[in-house]
Amino acid sequence: MSGLIALMTDFGLRDPFSGVMKGVILGINPSAQIVDVCHDIRPGDIKSAAFSLYMAFAYFPAETIFAVVVDPGVGMERKAIAAEIGGKVVVCPDNGILSWVLHDFGLGKAVELTNDRFHLHNASETFHGRDVFAPVAAHLSLGARLDEMGAEIKELVTSPIPQVIEQGPGVQGEIVYIDHFGNLVTNIPSDRLPEKARIHIGSVEVLGVSKAYGDVPAGHAIALIGSTGLLEVAVNGGDASQMFGASIGTHVVVYGV
Amino acid sequence: MSGLIALMTDFGLRDPFSGVMKGVILGINPSAQIVDVCHDIRPGDIKSAAFSLYMAFAYFPAETIFAVVVDPGVGMERKAIAAEIGGKVVVCPDNGILSWVLHDFGLGKAVELTNDRFHLHNASETFHGRDVFAPVAAHLSLGARLDEMGAEIKELVTSPIPQVIEQGPGVQGEIVYIDHFGNLVTNIPSDRLPEKARIHIGSVEVLGVSKAYGDVPAGHAIALIGSTGLLEVAVNGGDASQMFGASIGTHVVVYGV
Amino acid sequence: MSGLIALMTDFGLRDPFSGVMKGVILGINPSAQIVDVCHDIRPGDIKSAAFSLYMAFAYFPAETIFAVVVDPGVGMERKAIAAEIGGKVVVCPDNGILSWVLHDFGLGKAVELTNDRFHLHNASETFHGRDVFAPVAAHLSLGARLDEMGAEIKELVTSPIPQVIEQGPGVQGEIVYIDHFGNLVTNIPSDRLPEKARIHIGSVEVLGVSKAYGDVPAGHAIALIGSTGLLEVAVNGGDASQMFGASIGTHVVVYGV
Repeated sequence: MSGLIALMTDFGLRDPFSGVMKGVILGINPSAQIVDVCHDIRPGDIKSAAFSLYMAFAYFPAETIFAVVVDPGVGMERKAIAAEIGGKVVVCPDNGILSWVLHDFGLGKAVELTNDRFHLHNASETFHGRDVFAPVAAHLSLGARLDEMGAEIKELVTSPIPQVIEQGPGVQGEIVYIDHFGNLVTNIPSDRLPEKARIHIGSVEVLGVSKAYGDVPAGHAIALIGSTGLLEVAVNGGDASQMFGASIGTHVVVYGV
Repeated sequence: MSGLIALMTDFGLRDPFSGVMKGVILGINPSAQIVDVCHDIRPGDIKSAAFSLYMAFAYFPAETIFAVVVDPGVGMERKAIAAEIGGKVVVCPDNGILSWVLHDFGLGKAVELTNDRFHLHNASETFHGRDVFAPVAAHLSLGARLDEMGAEIKELVTSPIPQVIEQGPGVQGEIVYIDHFGNLVTNIPSDRLPEKARIHIGSVEVLGVSKAYGDVPAGHAIALIGSTGLLEVAVNGGDASQMFGASIGTHVVVYGV
Repeated sequence: MSGLIALMTDFGLRDPFSGVMKGVILGINPSAQIVDVCHDIRPGDIKSAAFSLYMAFAYFPAETIFAVVVDPGVGMERKAIAAEIGGKVVVCPDNGILSWVLHDFGLGKAVELTNDRFHLHNASETFHGRDVFAPVAAHLSLGARLDEMGAEIKELVTSPIPQVIEQGPGVQGEIVYIDHFGNLVTNIPSDRLPEKARIHIGSVEVLGVSKAYGDVPAGHAIALIGSTGLLEVAVNGGDASQMFGASIGTHVVVYGV
């Protein structure tokens, strides 16, 4: 693996928790190149973390080491793992965070992080980001191998990736991610859309798939293909999530006109 | 240009969007030195972005490459540009973000980013931060020249910089920026102030220009010369923007005593 | 000192202020390695800043230079200082930010930052993060010595560290920090707890000290030993601070069962 370590957490920037991870990493590998991906994932929101990782994953160089810490089950029986996926490594709790990247890239190899030679001494029960994931990422960046970290595991915890299903004359998907602009990302890929689409989300109907957020007047709803290649519903200059009362899992149905 | 790339966006830290830009940059130039300037510019607030860039600009080393992405018109007819200004380069949408720095430093040269050899393949219509601005910044940091990126353009989109005007016996300016403490930054430079000043902002009057936020009791309004050399109205330990109901554009009038 | 500079501020990420500090540092030492620890400390909250620094301090490598800027008294008579503590250096206002690390690690040496050869020219009265602390940190990272920066001072401003006191059959401590999850960190170390503890905080009683946040059902209160080795009260999946109306200084009393 390379010396590039990408951090994703729900730690926010109020507290020094993500900073502490960096201190631990640089104490082990002073040459590590640390990149903040995002630290304001909603606290404990594993589903959003999984989709966030998926949005970022392909855009990082080969051999990047991701440390992804959204870990409401820290100290419980959930495993701490490192997984090779698509030529990169993710160090994270085994709680479903990998669902989307595994679905797309498949699992190379995963190990449970049981060898405490690679952890901080006196690891806490409440902050594995600092005590397990950061030092393991740092050691991997120095060339330690996955199989030194613990025994291989074949089955990881995953949540089912929501499927697009035929629904009468249309297709039904659902919202899988809401970004901080309030844009609603669905699981419906562009090739599942009819040429002229009518999108229903709750009682809201949007006609047609546009190219750009600004293709409608300010405050109006719009559907478009977002940057992940999936159908997205937004409000130009507004917050679609609030305006439509939509949340992750809300159904979205698309018909031809 | 140097290998230093400074990022300013309205992407927040909830989503991985700014992180994705870093991944793209490091995939092209693994030695790039990436600096987060700020990522919580109010969504789509081009005026605040323009002033933020201005506040930061002079304090970065020569040859810094700024990638500034506040881009409500992404995918529309607005141009994507790179501009040499004051010995640095800014890569950004041509939507007025450069207004303040152009006013102060003047335009060296600007090009439209049309040469897609420097963009990601299959660039989206909705995320030029990832697909255009990040890769262009990375290629510039590797030594690519501006004129390889596209044709020169002579006219950039700018918003007028608000002017300070004589107003009876005083001067009238306006609020041009509100920082996260709620401090109100005006466009009135210190040399336009009378020796003893009386500052009016809405129905609030502040007497005198102080040296430090703490020169008045907690909760009291205060005027002082802020770090950009401009008159600023604040509340010691409080949020002047909320307390005075002031926003960008609110008039501020200063009289001698 | 090393080239590693760790930044902690209350500047947020809306404004470019923390970014400006980085620009200044890299203008002086282009090879400095800058790490964001956290920038969303509550505005002006010196107590939280002091505890945040304490939580991070030990986890950074020897010779790290911390620049900690929570500075409501900027421009007033408070000193700007640099202090050697536990083999590291902290550059900060002398306002109590060092209370916790001094209590734990003791003071090596401190100087007042009066030599303006190491400051920016025309330093403002309102932004010493940019004009004093950033350039001083950068010069230290290049090898400048503390005693070049100004005269030694023997007494620093500190707030008393709250003590745990015997309270009838139990011990009484208080809340010293609230993290962004709303978890309440007390000053009661694990070795002051009875084997079976009953924790009172306002009208809330928590029975027993658990291992992990998830050891109780969602929405339930839980007490555990946090990552700093101190008793912590949390709500699984919730915000204990809001639910209990607790704030820094709120008393926590622990009895044996």
